[in-house]
Amino acid sequence: MFNTVTVVGVGLISGSFSLALKDHQLVSKVIGVSRTGESARRALELGIIDEMLPLEEAVRQSDLIYVAIPVDVTLTVMRTIMDLITERQIVADAGSTKQALCEALAAHPMRSRFVATHPMWGTEFSGPEAAVHDAFRGRSCVICEKGKSAPDALEVMEKIYRLLGMSLVYMDAQSHDMHAAYVSHISHITSFALANTVLEKEREEDAIFELAGGGFESTVRLAKSSPSMWAPIFMQNRENVLDVLNEHIMQLKKFKSCLEKENYPYLRELMENANKIGRILR
Amino acid sequence: MFNTVTVVGVGLISGSFSLALKDHQLVSKVIGVSRTGESARRALELGIIDEMLPLEEAVRQSDLIYVAIPVDVTLTVMRTIMDLITERQIVADAGSTKQALCEALAAHPMRSRFVATHPMWGTEFSGPEAAVHDAFRGRSCVICEKGKSAPDALEVMEKIYRLLGMSLVYMDAQSHDMHAAYVSHISHITSFALANTVLEKEREEDAIFELAGGGFESTVRLAKSSPSMWAPIFMQNRENVLDVLNEHIMQLKKFKSCLEKENYPYLRELMENANKIGRILR
Repeated sequence: MFNTVTVVGVGLISGSFSLALKDHQLVSKVIGVSRTGESARRALELGIIDEMLPLEEAVRQSDLIYVAIPVDVTLTVMRTIMDLITERQIVADAGSTKQALCEALAAHPMRSRFVATHPMWGTEFSGPEAAVHDAFRGRSCVICEKGKSAPDALEVMEKIYRLLGMSLVYMDAQSHDMHAAYVSHISHITSFALANTVLEKEREEDAIFELAGGGFESTVRLAKSSPSMWAPIFMQNRENVLDVLNEHIMQLKKFKSCLEKENYPYLRELMENANKIGRILR
Repeated sequence: MFNTVTVVGVGLISGSFSLALKDHQLVSKVIGVSRTGESARRALELGIIDEMLPLEEAVRQSDLIYVAIPVDVTLTVMRTIMDLITERQIVADAGSTKQALCEALAAHPMRSRFVATHPMWGTEFSGPEAAVHDAFRGRSCVICEKGKSAPDALEVMEKIYRLLGMSLVYMDAQSHDMHAAYVSHISHITSFALANTVLEKEREEDAIFELAGGGFESTVRLAKSSPSMWAPIFMQNRENVLDVLNEHIMQLKKFKSCLEKENYPYLRELMENANKIGRILR
């Protein structure tokens, strides 16, 4: 499908995307662009990319430029890329926030060459070593503002994600950021906060190590996530995140009040309501 | 090792314990006791138990009586059992709280036949169908007040748990309940509250279903847990749970304050601190 693709960032998402393109034989050569030479060298060693180049040179050689770096850095890097490309190239990002980026590019003369995407997949790991084969299968990919992308550019990205096994969901950037706060960003906040809670209360680290079962591990798993990646997401989506975070604190206070007042029936009711999530998830 | 074992409760823990005894050929016959005939019949069908009997009759026939039912019910059922047993029988429980039960049995004339245990394993599922083979391997099992159990009773329980692949941790009941609040009970509270948060905010259930990735699923997984099992745990351990829940609300408020004030450096610091949990867990 492509002669050359550039991935900007050589970590979890960009690396896994590159591996997926290669595994599906959709590309002849993947160029990696990274601020840290060390990461790019590791990505080369791991066969995730075929070459490392400075951004401008990489963009010039590529049919598709795929950006998966912290969302604050994306804003500036994406402008540089958009200033460099021609009508024959396609640019897409994989960021966890969409509104700020879509707004920043709204008036750019090359806007139609850009496709705003968010593959809803990730793990708590980061860097080239975190990239895995067949990463995106079975997950959803959100595409925002599809009407603002040129039909050919949109089609190419839709085709790639479908080949990777993803189902496509379309929404405006504002709705995306709201839903993302509810079903993804708040999970990360609660996990980071839970880790800090336990680290603060449980001074005996041996006890955490010895006693923590599968339940604890699954709820704090996301607390291992990269601050460089997630702090900018929370900041860019702060209004939605604050909205859901306030609700979450209120929900926790309901549990607190039940325990303080030994209100057993209401405690049961809260838990039975929470059980409904099982019906939705599977 | 045993002629006959009774499991009181035929669900996740008691069922998995029974399967483990059978798999290791440690028992000839397992009798199941359940308040709900339906569960006992399912357990019979699934080969988890060999016979269902009323409590008194089951206790009379058994070498070991293993209790894994909601911790509030345990308090009364255990007294009945302790009043029935002889010096040649052993009683053990698998409850997630230990202080209330140990206190309730402290003055019982048969106290030395009881071993207070808590195998730190579980899933969000319940009932006989939730029982699995080889459930406890690689996890810790806490034994409380070992000095109050007769050496022969203690040794038998230690031997069983070791054969099941568990490592043993000894502590007093008070310490157990405190540590359990930190590394297990709070995870369940946050998960229940997170489910309620998302159900409250995200009125479009389709969006949860379509967009929720692995991160969301792992943080709300425990919200599917049984209220009958967990509400009594939170209530019995309410002081420790309230203590850690207050800390958790405070930690969430730190994130909230960072977002409100756009205090990026402190947000990063909170997240970097949370990352330490990765070092402890593996």
